[in-house]
Amino acid sequence: MRHATQPGARRAALSIALAAGLVAVGTAGTALTTDLTGHGDARRTDGDRTAAVRGAIDGSTAHNVILLIGDGMGDSEITVARNYQYGAAGHLPGIDALPLTGSYTTYALDKSNGKPDYVTDSAASGSGWSTGTKTYNGAISVDIDGKDQRTLLEIARANGLRTGDVTTAEIQDATPAVEVAHVTDRSCYGPSKTTTVCPTNALEKGGKGSITEQLLDARPDVTLGGGSATFAETAKAGQWQGKTLLQQAKDRGYQVVSDATGLAAVSTANQKTPVLGLFASGNFPTRWTGPAATHTGGTEPAVRCTPNSGLPAGQPDLATMTNKAISLLDDRSSKKGFFLQVEGASIDKQDHSANPCGQIGETVDLDEAVQAALAFAKKDGHTLVVLTADHGHSSQIVYPNTTTPGLTRTLTTADDQPMTVAYGTADTGGSQDHTGTQVRIAAYGPRAANVVGLTDQTDLFFTIRDALRLDADKASPEHATVDNVNVTDGARLKGKQTVRVTTNVEPKYTYIELNRGGTWITDNTKAPGSTQAGTRPTLVLDTRDHPDGAYQLKIDVVGYDGVTSEKIVPITIANGR
Amino acid sequence: MRHATQPGARRAALSIALAAGLVAVGTAGTALTTDLTGHGDARRTDGDRTAAVRGAIDGSTAHNVILLIGDGMGDSEITVARNYQYGAAGHLPGIDALPLTGSYTTYALDKSNGKPDYVTDSAASGSGWSTGTKTYNGAISVDIDGKDQRTLLEIARANGLRTGDVTTAEIQDATPAVEVAHVTDRSCYGPSKTTTVCPTNALEKGGKGSITEQLLDARPDVTLGGGSATFAETAKAGQWQGKTLLQQAKDRGYQVVSDATGLAAVSTANQKTPVLGLFASGNFPTRWTGPAATHTGGTEPAVRCTPNSGLPAGQPDLATMTNKAISLLDDRSSKKGFFLQVEGASIDKQDHSANPCGQIGETVDLDEAVQAALAFAKKDGHTLVVLTADHGHSSQIVYPNTTTPGLTRTLTTADDQPMTVAYGTADTGGSQDHTGTQVRIAAYGPRAANVVGLTDQTDLFFTIRDALRLDADKASPEHATVDNVNVTDGARLKGKQTVRVTTNVEPKYTYIELNRGGTWITDNTKAPGSTQAGTRPTLVLDTRDHPDGAYQLKIDVVGYDGVTSEKIVPITIANGR
Repeated sequence: MRHATQPGARRAALSIALAAGLVAVGTAGTALTTDLTGHGDARRTDGDRTAAVRGAIDGSTAHNVILLIGDGMGDSEITVARNYQYGAAGHLPGIDALPLTGSYTTYALDKSNGKPDYVTDSAASGSGWSTGTKTYNGAISVDIDGKDQRTLLEIARANGLRTGDVTTAEIQDATPAVEVAHVTDRSCYGPSKTTTVCPTNALEKGGKGSITEQLLDARPDVTLGGGSATFAETAKAGQWQGKTLLQQAKDRGYQVVSDATGLAAVSTANQKTPVLGLFASGNFPTRWTGPAATHTGGTEPAVRCTPNSGLPAGQPDLATMTNKAISLLDDRSSKKGFFLQVEGASIDKQDHSANPCGQIGETVDLDEAVQAALAFAKKDGHTLVVLTADHGHSSQIVYPNTTTPGLTRTLTTADDQPMTVAYGTADTGGSQDHTGTQVRIAAYGPRAANVVGLTDQTDLFFTIRDALRLDADKASPEHATVDNVNVTDGARLKGKQTVRVTTNVEPKYTYIELNRGGTWITDNTKAPGSTQAGTRPTLVLDTRDHPDGAYQLKIDVVGYDGVTSEKIVPITIANGR
Repeated sequence: MRHATQPGARRAALSIALAAGLVAVGTAGTALTTDLTGHGDARRTDGDRTAAVRGAIDGSTAHNVILLIGDGMGDSEITVARNYQYGAAGHLPGIDALPLTGSYTTYALDKSNGKPDYVTDSAASGSGWSTGTKTYNGAISVDIDGKDQRTLLEIARANGLRTGDVTTAEIQDATPAVEVAHVTDRSCYGPSKTTTVCPTNALEKGGKGSITEQLLDARPDVTLGGGSATFAETAKAGQWQGKTLLQQAKDRGYQVVSDATGLAAVSTANQKTPVLGLFASGNFPTRWTGPAATHTGGTEPAVRCTPNSGLPAGQPDLATMTNKAISLLDDRSSKKGFFLQVEGASIDKQDHSANPCGQIGETVDLDEAVQAALAFAKKDGHTLVVLTADHGHSSQIVYPNTTTPGLTRTLTTADDQPMTVAYGTADTGGSQDHTGTQVRIAAYGPRAANVVGLTDQTDLFFTIRDALRLDADKASPEHATVDNVNVTDGARLKGKQTVRVTTNVEPKYTYIELNRGGTWITDNTKAPGSTQAGTRPTLVLDTRDHPDGAYQLKIDVVGYDGVTSEKIVPITIANGR
């Protein structure tokens, strides 16, 4: 018999994870040396875990929530990645460390009749957890009638929490989009597509605009991902009509960064100066590459995956983005916590492409982000971490060195053994499809017990809402506007006057100016103090400097979000001269 | 909006299940009428479940364990069945009611090098949980070197628990076999195959015999399934050489029944008169039928499944067998409990055949058995119920009314919606294959928390062993033999003597007889009292009835298990005449 020299080492991992708070450091890519052939050698646990599981249950509320999504990461995709990177008896140090586990259903709704559509896309599934409302495939946080459904990120922001939205996909892709936008079709990234595909959402037709424009309105404190290409489009209506969306972002106070160095240099992110990191024109290139599955791949010589040599040097990985987002959002001086969504997007995209190495590398990338989230949560003590998928996908582990009617590829794993991955839902050149299986949901921290057993994707909305004690009806932050002016319409003024304005919220600037027949009488130079921050700006006006007659007081309030509002007060100067 | 009229009804189900002990009665096959389109309509739960999950954790030890296996029942197969029978928002009243959930890894070992083989078969996987030892595909409770590994059922019996082994497959099929036999290849059902395929196991070569012969030795109190055909084979060696295995079973005290009526009539099952129910010559026919998947099935008109009109009237379903096994094994007067394994076998077999209706009907059949187990466990309060699968399988839910490179079939579900099931691991005429995905494990009752998180199949052995406080080294019940005789070898006897024998365990019969030169002097007629039950049989022998000379006392002990042993004591009668 080949008995393990350290039989207890691996099996203790889960117990430790459960009891102490988790996350062992992985031994990525190293071959498994432990003997598995003896009695008990393959155990993952050591003795009764009742107390450990009980100890992992925390009924308190959460200060922060980090929701991590492995797009298309069903149980099969998890197993494929574990087998390859850590061996069948190994464990993914992030994904496998979450102590409380269950399954949830992911079905979408048929738009035509409101009944279940058994295979969801990322849009409908994301809308499910983001809003608590089931919807049709393609919908971004609207119900099957196209009506906007409020998102967790919007609600968290309305309740004063800091928010973040992180992905390795285009930031307009379905999963990040469901937290910040409401459009009838997921393809409406920018104004041009929105005009044709989502006309009811188009800004020029009175809608809220494209996904990108709504993202800028939703104003997460931290937004990190790809998709810079769409920011080159120009707005078709509204305050930024004719300007690019990138210019709009800058006008509206976003700190726009485009590489890892720029991201590292950011030191604060808040509603005055949120962070918008756009690190790729489209989706991030994948971290690993390797040959795609083919009709004969399963019986061809087994291959190992390789790092993607074409990976841009400035592209941060998901763990880097996650760690940065957490450090920017975590504010121990605040009574309010944060809500952060993190997506590993290209597990799905590489599964669509029948590329096992791409898929595995992205799963490992996500696993690192999960490790980052768990490390923070463990230290913090009041953070709920949830990891799940939006739907299952095609990849299946089949008998080694075999082929199927579909596409296959055999890899050599960390065990130094052949693993054949099959993709059977589309043929060469097609896109492998999502599947309708229930998928794993796992959690750590306060309220984590709510993922145990069988739930639905929409339950997750309520779990997070309640863990954070969010009032779902709380109004979102208002744009800055004039609340009151101490000069009434049509007032007759004489002598020296102090115009006193109050605004609803702190604006970035307020301009209080005097105007006559379309001509500015005062400006910043002529009337120092007319540009003021604060909620109670004033203008000291000596009306005797101006001839009698009809004038207007014009008050322009500019919010930190760049949105301006204007109030005109007609007055008459009547000094008798 | 189409709001639910009873929005809380469904979502309350899991909470109730967790809190109260579970198992709502299903509404099989009825269309779902609840509206799912509004905010929160699709929730399965209602509010924070922390307390309910905590309440489901019971760290005490278990009196009984019921282990239910859905062969090939991965998360995809569970979802397929739920969608079809109860709708996507419905729940399987047994399978979905188990409150504590996790995943486990199922890999086998490569016999050539002891390293992981990523796709297991039912033999290796069952051996994993049954013995706690990983092994190679095809192995029945032997390690990769072919060495016997003790099974949960054997250990439970050795510890004085009652035991049961129930399946819808042949009773010699891998999953039931792993609890009662040790052979190097799963195909060694009977003596003839064992001679050629498993020579080291063959009885005539000093082995323990075929799976069927070892089953009779293992002597579960209750054995129910198919596979009567093999019982027509004859033993090649040993006490029953030349007799059929069925005759052997009867000789050894088994109550053999062959239909539901016969099973219903059985009132006791124990080591004196265990029950052997053989309800089919091979595997049970499936409960449901429908068209198999084909290359064009996905786009053909959707079909509904139908009951199998060819189902033999006398064939019990799995819930009936489970309920009967429980009632026979449950003995409240005993300090010892029971261990029962129940397999829904043909989920796997119908998945192999790419037959969604067959597969779903068998999942529903298993679900009913789970309901039966849970109902008992809830009432009993000291029973651990574990439900899991041995491996994942091929079936995937793909976009409705589509085809794939493999085989597809579209069904109309309880939602009155199309669900397309794809089988992509083999082509027409081939056998769809197992997959290597981690699978769901769920539990209720004492020690159920040990299934939460990520475990391995072999962990289940230890969970059950420890839940039942079994001593894995405890010796199995001995065959009845003579412990002592009050007459020593070569004794010279005269006058009236009482031969006093003690046996190790209570035998069914003991024959104590006098023999001279191969001729019986006493028999039952001549020496009343020579056939006796009890552990202290005696023979009153008046030596003066016999001429002086050399004799033998021959003591034959016949156990309740039919195994005989003999002891010869040479004596001399010396009355001086």
